[in-house]
Amino acid sequence: MSDTLDVSADETALATPFLATLVRLMRAEDSYGSWEKRSDAHLLKDFILTKEQRREIPIIGDPDPDVLWRIEKFYAAVGLAIEEKAGHIASPMMKMSHEGFGRVILTVGRLVVLSKSLRDVHRWGQENLTKLAEAGTKAVDEACEMIAKFPEVADW
Amino acid sequence: MSDTLDVSADETALATPFLATLVRLMRAEDSYGSWEKRSDAHLLKDFILTKEQRREIPIIGDPDPDVLWRIEKFYAAVGLAIEEKAGHIASPMMKMSHEGFGRVILTVGRLVVLSKSLRDVHRWGQENLTKLAEAGTKAVDEACEMIAKFPEVADW
Repeated sequence: MSDTLDVSADETALATPFLATLVRLMRAEDSYGSWEKRSDAHLLKDFILTKEQRREIPIIGDPDPDVLWRIEKFYAAVGLAIEEKAGHIASPMMKMSHEGFGRVILTVGRLVVLSKSLRDVHRWGQENLTKLAEAGTKAVDEACEMIAKFPEVADW
Repeated sequence: MSDTLDVSADETALATPFLATLVRLMRAEDSYGSWEKRSDAHLLKDFILTKEQRREIPIIGDPDPDVLWRIEKFYAAVGLAIEEKAGHIASPMMKMSHEGFGRVILTVGRLVVLSKSLRDVHRWGQENLTKLAEAGTKAVDEACEMIAKFPEVADW
């Protein structure tokens, strides 16, 4: 953990429904129990990139497969959080070029509840847990607004 | 070309808007002009699999990349034909496992106009050009019906 992170802000962030879902999803992937003793904040540490760290990552070459895996987890958690909030399962689809740009969409029934272009994913990450929680919560809220606006398409 | 194919049926099929679009798309990929002298029917011959040919293809192992390429062209042609008919650009997204199953969706605005599960794509193909034209035309019609039903979502 970077020691510039504010511990109480982290605790508030980890208590948000979105980060709670992301932590649950990460723990579900831990087949060998190797992360059992890690704190939630430690478990999410690779989702965090400070500005300095970001600058050091080159955006040439293929993105790290671990980054792609984390982006998948992030949007899978958005999908789960949508289900908890709106009662509809949202399924993600991601299409990435090997150069680090692409698109991710989340669909519920016949409705695209979230559509996002990604670029320079080599540097994908948030500055701290608060920003990570905000990014996820915003995506969930936008998706739930779409479902509320077009319930018939979501139920299709 | 299999000589069991009926030439006049092929001509009727090639005159459908869907197959005309697919042929146009295939010719657009021909950067080296190597297909210039091929007839339209010859150009589409790999989209055709007779029952006998289908049975001979094992469904173990990774699907042939050429099959995946053809599936992409097929759905890209569906997307183009949707635009010609309904005036909306439809963008395809395909997610395939390396074992030959997956999903393809076409979206217009925030509307999923087509959603299709694919499996055993090793054996993907249609029996003849008439069936190929029918499959594409059906997908286009279904998508256009969705757009007509939910124009607001398609325009989003």
